[in-house]
Amino acid sequence: MSFADWVENNQQHLIDRLAEVVRIPSVSGDAAYRPHVFAMAEWLQNAMRALNIDASLHALGKQTLDGKELDLPPIVLGQYGNDPNKKTILVYGHYDVQPALKEDGWTSEPFELHHDLKSGRLYGRGSTDDKGPVLGWLNVIEAHQQSGQEFPVNLKMCFEGMEESGSEGLDGFIEREKDAFFAGVDAVCISDNYWLTTSSPAITYGLRGLMYQKIVISGPGADLHSGVFGGTVHEPMTDLVHLFSKLVSPSGEILIPGIKELVAPLTDEERQRYEKINFQVSDLESAAGGKITLSDDKVDVLMGRMRYPSLSIHGVEGAFSAPGAKTVIPAKVQGKYSIRLVPNLLPDQVAAICKGYLEAEFAKLGSKNTLTVETLSGGKPWVSDVNHWNYQCGIKATEKVYNQTPDLTREGGSIPCTLSLQDILHKNVMLLPMGRSDDGAHSINEKLDIDNYIRGTKLLGEYLHEVSKVEA
Amino acid sequence: MSFADWVENNQQHLIDRLAEVVRIPSVSGDAAYRPHVFAMAEWLQNAMRALNIDASLHALGKQTLDGKELDLPPIVLGQYGNDPNKKTILVYGHYDVQPALKEDGWTSEPFELHHDLKSGRLYGRGSTDDKGPVLGWLNVIEAHQQSGQEFPVNLKMCFEGMEESGSEGLDGFIEREKDAFFAGVDAVCISDNYWLTTSSPAITYGLRGLMYQKIVISGPGADLHSGVFGGTVHEPMTDLVHLFSKLVSPSGEILIPGIKELVAPLTDEERQRYEKINFQVSDLESAAGGKITLSDDKVDVLMGRMRYPSLSIHGVEGAFSAPGAKTVIPAKVQGKYSIRLVPNLLPDQVAAICKGYLEAEFAKLGSKNTLTVETLSGGKPWVSDVNHWNYQCGIKATEKVYNQTPDLTREGGSIPCTLSLQDILHKNVMLLPMGRSDDGAHSINEKLDIDNYIRGTKLLGEYLHEVSKVEA
Repeated sequence: MSFADWVENNQQHLIDRLAEVVRIPSVSGDAAYRPHVFAMAEWLQNAMRALNIDASLHALGKQTLDGKELDLPPIVLGQYGNDPNKKTILVYGHYDVQPALKEDGWTSEPFELHHDLKSGRLYGRGSTDDKGPVLGWLNVIEAHQQSGQEFPVNLKMCFEGMEESGSEGLDGFIEREKDAFFAGVDAVCISDNYWLTTSSPAITYGLRGLMYQKIVISGPGADLHSGVFGGTVHEPMTDLVHLFSKLVSPSGEILIPGIKELVAPLTDEERQRYEKINFQVSDLESAAGGKITLSDDKVDVLMGRMRYPSLSIHGVEGAFSAPGAKTVIPAKVQGKYSIRLVPNLLPDQVAAICKGYLEAEFAKLGSKNTLTVETLSGGKPWVSDVNHWNYQCGIKATEKVYNQTPDLTREGGSIPCTLSLQDILHKNVMLLPMGRSDDGAHSINEKLDIDNYIRGTKLLGEYLHEVSKVEA
Repeated sequence: MSFADWVENNQQHLIDRLAEVVRIPSVSGDAAYRPHVFAMAEWLQNAMRALNIDASLHALGKQTLDGKELDLPPIVLGQYGNDPNKKTILVYGHYDVQPALKEDGWTSEPFELHHDLKSGRLYGRGSTDDKGPVLGWLNVIEAHQQSGQEFPVNLKMCFEGMEESGSEGLDGFIEREKDAFFAGVDAVCISDNYWLTTSSPAITYGLRGLMYQKIVISGPGADLHSGVFGGTVHEPMTDLVHLFSKLVSPSGEILIPGIKELVAPLTDEERQRYEKINFQVSDLESAAGGKITLSDDKVDVLMGRMRYPSLSIHGVEGAFSAPGAKTVIPAKVQGKYSIRLVPNLLPDQVAAICKGYLEAEFAKLGSKNTLTVETLSGGKPWVSDVNHWNYQCGIKATEKVYNQTPDLTREGGSIPCTLSLQDILHKNVMLLPMGRSDDGAHSINEKLDIDNYIRGTKLLGEYLHEVSKVEA
């Protein structure tokens, strides 16, 4: 019997294990839940040891949350196998979850796995993000043990408990352990994202970065009454909307000179990759909840999300934002916008270009108000090489389990640990998702389809088998 | 002895009376204070009757406030004299006040009149807005009685208790009583505004109107994540800032065709009026708290406030307005802006022009989002004829009391009852202020200078004497 057959025959056992971990409300963002996060780390360590994995917990120090000083949840490390003749794969996942309350609109208790027989779905907080995928790796090990099949690689596991709260402490830990626990890793696999759609498996090889700025314009000493001062003074809000209008066109084109010139050119091979993706513009319309796409062409839409920068205006702090009609001239407005970055746009460089442009455009306004531009956050874009053996193994494993070639996708948002692992370990990193686009990772009624849990477990195992076939 | 000498010799008595009414916290905007508003109406009626004024209270029905059904404060009417050989002047004032709490930053108890000996100021809520001016009229009557001087006119008094809360019920009351209590009125005088500066007496003959709209743009079914959707959809906030930028230039010019064309032309006589006003651009800079005037020319600044329309962008409802960096694409944004109106701009007409313009500009954006434009409020501008005998009497009285010609001003904001009285009674209305520009009517530490209270009382009386000299 193959490990995959064992998985197929022991679905209820694997679902029961997922139910056991969903029951632990390991919410990292709420101080009151911190003991549950620790309980979840203990559970993992025990479960790993029961599978003969060399597991250990690693403290990360303290943090302040909700006014309390708390211990950070530990990193759970595991090592399974140490055969110099096998490749060593590092897998990453996280055992903490987003907050969830029944009264937010959940149709079942968020911290009780609800098996909906009709739809074949497993509802519960953490089911798909990221407890299902984390258990997937343990399921693969157990399946090999129970089926008597040899485990194909050395597996190193790194599971964190702060992913939903900024991964505090993770980068430093990887840096400290790079020549210790992380030594000898050949490639990295992260299962913590989703298919592009609800029907086609995907492998993700890129993530956009971010450059977030606020445009601060001030002039009056305090908010003014528009009846008394309207028509006599330079109004900060007027200046701000003029600057905003010079950042991006209504069709989404970034108007800041020097940004699009830095974008890596599109190759034919890459363009073909988008053409092959099993996706329709209507998929995006239904996800957005409106027929508002910038283009009616599938490839344009996919590239708009995955491979081109985009600029969004998020809002204004300091202006009138309540319901009703207040006749105020706000004294100080802080406009927030950000640019999603792609190769070769780096956050510091883009921040400097934008600041210079905004200052030059503000000077043209002839306003007597004062402008300052502050950069609030930044993150580099990440794109990996799909021709690396790591990706080829992921592709072959997907073809074996799903009988179809995976969509090769890039994502619009960021998963910071991806870049950290690549930059510190200098190894190829692949994102191999288990769940579907509609899993609702951070929403109410988060779910994981049973089919994705079971086939996803097989996929992770088959991927390791493909790795074992790669020539050294 | 003239009435003015009696006023001069009985200052403490008049200050004591002001202290008595400041002690009644007649806040109309807070249901818990409603009994005090009624107490203030009773106080007024009693004080008027003690001066042989034919006074009466008139109920206005019910309102709902803070979830409670409440009786509206009554209108206090008073008639003093009924001589067919004298002119009949109607005066308006209000006996309710803005809220005030010591902890808001008052340096003395807001509902105890604090006589600051050093500055000669009377601090207290309602001191200048509008209890001081209301008492001014009673002071004038008492002064004539005590000095044995004949009262120069028939005086009708109309004092309301809801001015700070939208003057609910007032317009209907004036309409109902126009041929009864208000019959026979020759002209109207309202003392409920302020000098343009801290040093020169003023008479106000114009008020700007208002047209307030919200621009609603929606597209996505819910707020979207900019990482996932940025670069793929038309963003409502982008559309909004482009529309905003087409309303007004950074130098304050209204960009909507058809607005400035409707503004009444400037005459030489009117321009000279602005040139004569005792005002410096630095006065406005210090009031605004910044050197941000649109012009360095005094007349431009005054006309910007008084006789030209202005457009202010107040803010956005529905966008990200909190501190921090949130990467949201807001699904529905509601941009708020308003235009201050001057003759010959009428609110309905301007609303239609703006709506049509916004719809046309939105069509040019090529966005797939949806626009609606809603008008939230409107009020007509008001300008009176300064050559009318009513104003000439105000000017002569000011010259007598202050030894200087008053600034003839228009105000940027609105005092709705002014227009109601003019439109319903078809009589000339004049605004004859008692207080100074820095009285802080709606702020903490509201005050009335003793000099303004005493000379202001004399001014109101001298005005009535001037009226008595006008040829029928």
